[in-house]
Amino acid sequence: MDASPAAPFHFELHSTDAAPGSAAPGSAARRATFHTPHGPIAMPAFAPVGTQANVKTLEPRDLHEAGCELILSNTYHLYLRPGHELVQKLGGLHAFMRWDGPILTDSGGYQVFSLAHQRKLADEGVTFRSHHDGSLHFFTPEKVMEVEQALGADIAMVLDECPTPTDRAETETAVARTQRWAERCRAAHTRTDQALFGIVQGGIFPELRAQSATGLIPLDFPGYAVGGLAVGETKEQMYATLDATCPLLPTDRPRYLMGVGAPEDIVEAVWRGIDMFDCVLPTRIARNGALFTPEGRLNMRNARFADDSAPVQEDCGCYTCRTVSRAYLRHLYKAGEISALRLGTIHNVHFMMQLMREIRAALEGGRYAAYRDAFLARYRIADQATRHEQHGRRRAARAEQQQQHLTQGR
Amino acid sequence: MDASPAAPFHFELHSTDAAPGSAAPGSAARRATFHTPHGPIAMPAFAPVGTQANVKTLEPRDLHEAGCELILSNTYHLYLRPGHELVQKLGGLHAFMRWDGPILTDSGGYQVFSLAHQRKLADEGVTFRSHHDGSLHFFTPEKVMEVEQALGADIAMVLDECPTPTDRAETETAVARTQRWAERCRAAHTRTDQALFGIVQGGIFPELRAQSATGLIPLDFPGYAVGGLAVGETKEQMYATLDATCPLLPTDRPRYLMGVGAPEDIVEAVWRGIDMFDCVLPTRIARNGALFTPEGRLNMRNARFADDSAPVQEDCGCYTCRTVSRAYLRHLYKAGEISALRLGTIHNVHFMMQLMREIRAALEGGRYAAYRDAFLARYRIADQATRHEQHGRRRAARAEQQQQHLTQGR
Repeated sequence: MDASPAAPFHFELHSTDAAPGSAAPGSAARRATFHTPHGPIAMPAFAPVGTQANVKTLEPRDLHEAGCELILSNTYHLYLRPGHELVQKLGGLHAFMRWDGPILTDSGGYQVFSLAHQRKLADEGVTFRSHHDGSLHFFTPEKVMEVEQALGADIAMVLDECPTPTDRAETETAVARTQRWAERCRAAHTRTDQALFGIVQGGIFPELRAQSATGLIPLDFPGYAVGGLAVGETKEQMYATLDATCPLLPTDRPRYLMGVGAPEDIVEAVWRGIDMFDCVLPTRIARNGALFTPEGRLNMRNARFADDSAPVQEDCGCYTCRTVSRAYLRHLYKAGEISALRLGTIHNVHFMMQLMREIRAALEGGRYAAYRDAFLARYRIADQATRHEQHGRRRAARAEQQQQHLTQGR
Repeated sequence: MDASPAAPFHFELHSTDAAPGSAAPGSAARRATFHTPHGPIAMPAFAPVGTQANVKTLEPRDLHEAGCELILSNTYHLYLRPGHELVQKLGGLHAFMRWDGPILTDSGGYQVFSLAHQRKLADEGVTFRSHHDGSLHFFTPEKVMEVEQALGADIAMVLDECPTPTDRAETETAVARTQRWAERCRAAHTRTDQALFGIVQGGIFPELRAQSATGLIPLDFPGYAVGGLAVGETKEQMYATLDATCPLLPTDRPRYLMGVGAPEDIVEAVWRGIDMFDCVLPTRIARNGALFTPEGRLNMRNARFADDSAPVQEDCGCYTCRTVSRAYLRHLYKAGEISALRLGTIHNVHFMMQLMREIRAALEGGRYAAYRDAFLARYRIADQATRHEQHGRRRAARAEQQQQHLTQGR
């Protein structure tokens, strides 16, 4: 891609651990900057998710205060409500949500598969019913490009098919269809102030990842995502897939690991050469009372915090930690106060941004291997039980919502 | 009371419309300042309500930004959860909720009558069951003083009995009991850094109001509330009761109209000589989507705002109006985003504080009669239907909560 600073998009690679003479053998970590029409994104970067054109409980000023540069918003949700045409009429997503920094929109494909009803997949596209009102819709690569261009994010994603990552037959079909859809998206996308990224599929199968990457690279996307991960495979399978996939991707384009947001996964994925991430995890678990610290998650509903006058995290600079105690925060969570959800979200988003700042500083200082070791030694990974509990709660909520929808009739 | 600025409390009366030669004949409006250990309160003042040690959806910085000087917190709620002893252990209410300005706590009496279960009233005190878990509790004047002194607000209220304002027999009993309880509260209250206010009862009956005021004034409270209003009587009955009651109160003490917060009622009550107000109205209706403007309330869920790029209120300086459009705010309300509740609350609290600033400026300029006329001519009062709908929604929510509680068993 055009490397001139005058181009609307420009990927600037500052350093690579994999370079000859690197102080971190085995690492493929990169320190980079991706320049967009709404400003630069220092990489590795994490994007909080603002599903419905709002990072839940936060305002633009909170995101700026935390040091966010990129946020993600969901095409599926905005297409259904308030509608991409309305957003366009109101000046596009930046003007609508009053976020003046870079925005990325996904393609909506993942939500069609995880949220919508009665979806039917064909080569032409996917039909589905809205999870709000049961209305019938049809997403094709061309339609999704129309929607994403109307929304007007800085980065748009191609429509892809995200299979069960361990199902070989399903994944083969998905890789082939993702390739055809990527070609159609590329052809339909015309906005020069929006970068369209390709998505590599292939589940946990290295040869399918290679097939997908090989097919997409000639389409010359200005960035490449590794899709279809963090959807049920083990951490080991995810890391191995990154080991196999990252080396296949162009070194002069950003690499985006979609849907990943656990701190330990980010540290590991950066090591393997990933530049950008998005995930609902920090904001979602904050609303459940789980707050990040360098030692791992704390559940603020725990009785042991009832009279704890310390902040959530001693050395944290976020508003929540500068202002209130664990005891007060626990009281707000127990009392069902909305402010608890917000104060928790402020902290978790700040924690993630601080993590990315530390990662970038370690890369700049040529000490990422040591940083990774120290982080993983200190950070207690949420056990499978906790992760399943969070996941189960989410599934239950979704099932309830679907049930409600069915009861209301269409 | 001691008028020296060195005293912890000091009521400074700047001007009274009722003074000889006043430019506003018929007005008893006052411009004053009440000095407290946590700073001065410019009066007339409005206090947003932070029931559970938090003004719902807001942080201390938001309250400061809006210009709030006084907030109210509810003794009944804090006594039950997290408990007044815990709050005291954590440094008192100011330290607990990190609000460094003046705080007022009510006595909890009103909530015992409106929220608690199986209450039994006797001269000694009132027994009730918690609306959380059905546990049994006993509030006496002495107990309430213990709780309020542990919470440590700048202003505490005596335990009173709030009758149906139009029921003469019930009100007679309540006036007598309120008098005896006020005497016991006065005797039990010892904190010199906390001002204990008396509460005049008497429903809509001028002679009972006179009896109550006459009984309380010898107790020499540093402030007097007019209680038992805004609980079902008509606006005309409320205004007439203020006409009859305010002249009975000492001119050198603040006068507090409890539970009143509709802008038109504040304008009318200030005219009649009230200095301070509290109400959940601005924050509660904001969460329902009703936002104040100088022309009256707007319901942000209304379809006519779907593509309205104007702010909620054109000339408003609040963060919400400076930042987002009606269209975006409507989207957030319709999409069920928590941010809608918060952005709406920020606006409504700002509106109330701006109203109080305008009232004080009009008083200072000797033009309150004109201000009142202009305000009431411009402001469309929410019709009875809307008020009943809000009230009905509240009652329904409470009934549901009580039902839930009963189903869960005790």
